[in-house]
Amino acid sequence: MGLPVVGMVGGGQLSRMTHQAAISLGLSLRVLADGTHDSAALVAHGVVVGSHTSLADLTAFAAGCEVVTFDHEHVPGALIAALEASGTNVQPGAAALLHAQDKLVMRQRLSALGVAVPAFAPVASTADVEAFAAEHGWPVVLKAVTGGYDGKGVWICRTPAEAAPVLASGVRLLVEQLVPLRRELAAVVARSPGRQGAAWPVVETVQRDGICVEVVAPAPGLPEELAVQAQRLALRLADELGVVGVLAVELFESAAGLLVNELAMRPHNSAHWTIEGSRTSQFEQHLRAVLDYPMGTTCRTAEWVVMANVLGGEGEPDLDHRLHLLFGRDPGLKVHLYGKQVRPGRKVGHVTALGDDLDDVRRRAREGAHYLRTGTWLQ
Amino acid sequence: MGLPVVGMVGGGQLSRMTHQAAISLGLSLRVLADGTHDSAALVAHGVVVGSHTSLADLTAFAAGCEVVTFDHEHVPGALIAALEASGTNVQPGAAALLHAQDKLVMRQRLSALGVAVPAFAPVASTADVEAFAAEHGWPVVLKAVTGGYDGKGVWICRTPAEAAPVLASGVRLLVEQLVPLRRELAAVVARSPGRQGAAWPVVETVQRDGICVEVVAPAPGLPEELAVQAQRLALRLADELGVVGVLAVELFESAAGLLVNELAMRPHNSAHWTIEGSRTSQFEQHLRAVLDYPMGTTCRTAEWVVMANVLGGEGEPDLDHRLHLLFGRDPGLKVHLYGKQVRPGRKVGHVTALGDDLDDVRRRAREGAHYLRTGTWLQ
Repeated sequence: MGLPVVGMVGGGQLSRMTHQAAISLGLSLRVLADGTHDSAALVAHGVVVGSHTSLADLTAFAAGCEVVTFDHEHVPGALIAALEASGTNVQPGAAALLHAQDKLVMRQRLSALGVAVPAFAPVASTADVEAFAAEHGWPVVLKAVTGGYDGKGVWICRTPAEAAPVLASGVRLLVEQLVPLRRELAAVVARSPGRQGAAWPVVETVQRDGICVEVVAPAPGLPEELAVQAQRLALRLADELGVVGVLAVELFESAAGLLVNELAMRPHNSAHWTIEGSRTSQFEQHLRAVLDYPMGTTCRTAEWVVMANVLGGEGEPDLDHRLHLLFGRDPGLKVHLYGKQVRPGRKVGHVTALGDDLDDVRRRAREGAHYLRTGTWLQ
Repeated sequence: MGLPVVGMVGGGQLSRMTHQAAISLGLSLRVLADGTHDSAALVAHGVVVGSHTSLADLTAFAAGCEVVTFDHEHVPGALIAALEASGTNVQPGAAALLHAQDKLVMRQRLSALGVAVPAFAPVASTADVEAFAAEHGWPVVLKAVTGGYDGKGVWICRTPAEAAPVLASGVRLLVEQLVPLRRELAAVVARSPGRQGAAWPVVETVQRDGICVEVVAPAPGLPEELAVQAQRLALRLADELGVVGVLAVELFESAAGLLVNELAMRPHNSAHWTIEGSRTSQFEQHLRAVLDYPMGTTCRTAEWVVMANVLGGEGEPDLDHRLHLLFGRDPGLKVHLYGKQVRPGRKVGHVTALGDDLDDVRRRAREGAHYLRTGTWLQ
């Protein structure tokens, strides 16, 4: 049929859900997975087992792919640059992706662009942290410059004594002001090589222990002016940084306005709600973007959409049994399970509720996620 | 995770789309395909190549499956019965499926249940046909009792001379009155072993040369009373015949009321619109039903939903190029391509449009399907 092959590096749930979207477009996603039990490797046809830190594995994987993209940020930039130099179409490219891989580079670049971020500084010693705190106050936030995710690589320190062991770990760090925030938001957009952009409604994200547990679309009570500002900011960043594919901009809503917290250049947890809640899901849009197809409509399919992550609980749940009871209780809830081994706190799935009444929609999403995790009802 | 394995016999687009739905439920569909280039075999992980007419192949395929189901009606009933006798959970079972495999048995059973069908009779000779026509008039419709689909196995005969060669072919036949009809409808429902049923809105189906080309949900201008009658009829038939999974009841809307034309016991072309147009797609619902999970909500996500089949045209199209132009023209159109070799008249995909204005939605669906087929715009 002459349709292109898309390769996605990483076999997690983002690849799994991108594969679902690829099927509709007549494509079959080729997945580079760490092992045959990876979430996407369980369901995709074209699974290659290999290492995302091996240029040989990446090169072999890319052969025959129209485009190579990612379900995580962990491929070293030098390898991506080498792939690009040898003629592979990699989206997003190394130059863009650097801003999702290196928190210091990202903050420096955004500052240069005049985009508000929390006050920050690179630090190498307790003295550096104390100097920063003298200006911005305690507590401060220490962050690993590279490699952190889901709350890992982030330390809130109230005193120099708390900061000392983090600094002693040898990890490259930056320090950041702990911003008093109203809440966290995310502005998710997609951009194609042809520079078309598309934005979904801005959402509210709720974190617990550094892990996203809930996303509400659209962000309740967000003034139209701020929503448009956030969407414009995300579209502008996608363009300035040369992002191709989905860009998620995590934002703090604070008294000082919107501050950029993190960037991700791939399908993102804060837009899982788009599978049922938007006419074009982030997974389809990511594929359209990296293939330079025109973007799809991003309008919502319901007034309110709430996604709740299903985190692993204690022990091995009988998910089959729980699905029976959950579906009986809420026939409108949409369930996504990732086929992953359950470990406490690990994201093993998500649920999405849709409807006209925010309180009810949020209650249903929370109850579904809680029940799948614990086997007990919230109320 | 303790989630069950579902086996689907047949590697066509229905398996392909069922696999997409299975991924959300944490499942991986196991597919028995004729070959590695079958539509579902291109995208599913657990593909077994084998023959659906071989008991040995079916038995090996079924081992380890919680339930075995079908994407077509071509597995001989005796083999299904043998699988069931050896303890395999097959849904729908042989006793139910017979009514989708044998048009004569179906008509006799429906007549016995008091359900209206067009006048019919088994025929073995031209004399039989002439006797039937003497009562019901010419033209008549000859139908192969088994094995017909997409207009194959159906002959409209205006004279005994036209009927003679069909009768001489040796195919088992029935004759049917050619009913003057307003239009064709379909009532699609699902039923679980626990006898829960769920109905989607009744749709209008448009056929050309015996092939479904367009489905409009809900059927425009259908009186509420008739819609409810059709849904009740389909739910009743599912229960009376012991169907588990999706049941599609193809109906004639005629001056004499609703007449049943055909039954299908699997996901069906007349409900492809449910992928985006209903909170629960027919593919998810079929899985929920055969696994005896409670049914999902069947409400629509838009006022009007129109699906148009993409039929193969002449030559090998550059679908990648056509997708670029089509997405540019209609960013809201949802495209499904099946990965099948293009042959004239073959269903190679479908498109779905959704919105508030029926004329506009229908125009978009028609234009999308026409463009993917021909590479030219309708207007």
